[in-house]
Amino acid sequence: MSAFELKNLDECLEKHLPAEELKEVKRILYGVEQDQTLELPASASTTAKENGFEIKGYRFSARPEQLRKPRLVRVGAIQNSIALPTTAPIGEQREGIWKKVKAMIKAAAEAGCNIVCTQEAWTMPFAFCTREKFPWCEFAEEAEKGPTTKMLAELAKAYNMVIVHSILERDVEHGETIWNTAVVISNSGRYLGKHRKNHIPRVGDFNESTYYMEGNTGHPVFETEFGKIAINICYGRHHPQNWMMFGLNGAEIVFNPSATIGRLSEPLWSIEARNAAIANSYFTVPINRVGTEEFPNEYTSGDGQPAHKQFGPFYGSTYVAAPDGSRTPSLSRCQDGLLVTELDLNLCRQVKDFWGFRQTQRLPLYAESLQKASELDFKPQIVREQ
Amino acid sequence: MSAFELKNLDECLEKHLPAEELKEVKRILYGVEQDQTLELPASASTTAKENGFEIKGYRFSARPEQLRKPRLVRVGAIQNSIALPTTAPIGEQREGIWKKVKAMIKAAAEAGCNIVCTQEAWTMPFAFCTREKFPWCEFAEEAEKGPTTKMLAELAKAYNMVIVHSILERDVEHGETIWNTAVVISNSGRYLGKHRKNHIPRVGDFNESTYYMEGNTGHPVFETEFGKIAINICYGRHHPQNWMMFGLNGAEIVFNPSATIGRLSEPLWSIEARNAAIANSYFTVPINRVGTEEFPNEYTSGDGQPAHKQFGPFYGSTYVAAPDGSRTPSLSRCQDGLLVTELDLNLCRQVKDFWGFRQTQRLPLYAESLQKASELDFKPQIVREQ
Repeated sequence: MSAFELKNLDECLEKHLPAEELKEVKRILYGVEQDQTLELPASASTTAKENGFEIKGYRFSARPEQLRKPRLVRVGAIQNSIALPTTAPIGEQREGIWKKVKAMIKAAAEAGCNIVCTQEAWTMPFAFCTREKFPWCEFAEEAEKGPTTKMLAELAKAYNMVIVHSILERDVEHGETIWNTAVVISNSGRYLGKHRKNHIPRVGDFNESTYYMEGNTGHPVFETEFGKIAINICYGRHHPQNWMMFGLNGAEIVFNPSATIGRLSEPLWSIEARNAAIANSYFTVPINRVGTEEFPNEYTSGDGQPAHKQFGPFYGSTYVAAPDGSRTPSLSRCQDGLLVTELDLNLCRQVKDFWGFRQTQRLPLYAESLQKASELDFKPQIVREQ
Repeated sequence: MSAFELKNLDECLEKHLPAEELKEVKRILYGVEQDQTLELPASASTTAKENGFEIKGYRFSARPEQLRKPRLVRVGAIQNSIALPTTAPIGEQREGIWKKVKAMIKAAAEAGCNIVCTQEAWTMPFAFCTREKFPWCEFAEEAEKGPTTKMLAELAKAYNMVIVHSILERDVEHGETIWNTAVVISNSGRYLGKHRKNHIPRVGDFNESTYYMEGNTGHPVFETEFGKIAINICYGRHHPQNWMMFGLNGAEIVFNPSATIGRLSEPLWSIEARNAAIANSYFTVPINRVGTEEFPNEYTSGDGQPAHKQFGPFYGSTYVAAPDGSRTPSLSRCQDGLLVTELDLNLCRQVKDFWGFRQTQRLPLYAESLQKASELDFKPQIVREQ
């Protein structure tokens, strides 16, 4: 591993490339031809500064239409490290994270955000690397009635903001089962619904299949005052079919709350959510935590290396991708941050009208093909020389 | 449009970034941590120099296994401009392109390539912008018995090389219908089979739906002496399901012969084929033509601009992506070129074993979901506040 740490890839390019080259590099790499900067209110910047997190603002525009007004929505994406050591009492750990994220939600409100989303399992350290059930399962809480949803519901109502948060869920009514779940709270402060992670990793230290099963909530799209939103949780971003079903159900913005580490997935990070935005003509918001987390007991990583106590670093790099293939720069790779992005949701339909992927996708062909491929005696279509 | 032309994005980064930053940028952007350079024989470089095309060599390695030997395959990808004005006689135009590409195939043989693939509709200018049927349909030829397949079959046998080429097909036996088709010629020199483009664009000047219909050949994988290969032609790269079916049928390398232009698709180019490599644990080889083509009669582009005669520039930028998410640099954006890449096909299974996407993809869920979404009375899964 290089000793040198790059805090932000985009800032590195901006620093070193001459203006003309930079402009072309940004167009080719990011699909960006104009200044994307969104001016943020001083109050939001002050809150960020006082609480020690980065805040960045960008915007995507759409062409004016004659029959529809612009549908401008501001989306806030929050990436953060944990607040207290993992040896602190569970309640205090959660309170500590609540406190720092509440300040970020306040800044999001000050920046005019209509929808905010957290990172995956945001109330806790990502302890699944340990394979220990205790005390970590104590972080699980009910999606609708748990303390975190309750706390956020008040903020949602006070700020008139939809809040999406991704937690470890305990389904008390159904056998105390544990799930990886995103909860949607309406700007009315009411619980709108939940979605459970569809694809569970079995890779590296992501021992999540030890804790919970594949989600059973389908691919719900939540119709909010600020657009139709969905959540593709973490490892689901590796599966184009998961992204596709949210699109077929009508999503305009799909959040991807994640927790992922550098050596494993970083070269994939800028590709997958952006490809999903392109293929499905919607906005995507991949969010990843930051920092390195240290656990009380040592564990091994199945990679031949000695036992250790650390997990990470999580590389942050939260960004937003648009249906036309353009994207924002990333937040920092190592610092807490709030990414505020103004979207014109009209862009989704405009890109559908222009590119036509929704019309050229031949759904019946693939429904039939996947059905055949699902059968035990599936014979792949292979051509051999006679 | 910027007056400044960037010949190659990768060379621009290499020129301006300090060594430490460049190393991290390459790791994050391209998933590359070691030197990828493949030394090429002097004869290949000489052929390239004499014939005025770029030649580059890269390699991907895999970990050593105990029970399987490395399965090293060299793949050649050819990008080129047309040779003569589009006003020249059709036969001469084709001969002109044959001549320059034959030299590139010779260089590929000298570089030890086992499989070579051309760009889309390689024997002709990309005249579909014009919507004129004549004389352009004269470029169409039979997949199995056409003059181009015949010419290439001799090279395939002489060089012991599988050749994939993408042409305008005329199906003489079935109503003289026209198709966009990739033909696979075995290294024995025999015709192995064909695949017809599954997804036909309706965007920009890509008026292909005026000429041919959606392909009816499914998603064949061709089992060759050098691995299992498939072809996703051009616009099919925007459809993750198309990529997926080649994977489910067992492909290890999927070529993407293309013809696409800058303002339309360039920010998507580095994303889609690479995402497919990741999602399906195979290698992808997106190939795009270069140059600007001028047609005899003016045509309009449906964009409010005056009628004109040019189509392009096609931006080249051919590259190879690996199942682990890494990729090679691109060929030039504006010059003929041959990209030689050595792959260890063992990497496909290794990545499947490591990441497990093939096991976590929940095919039956999506077979059922796509079936429902295909029905006329499909009701999207939408959650609304009561």
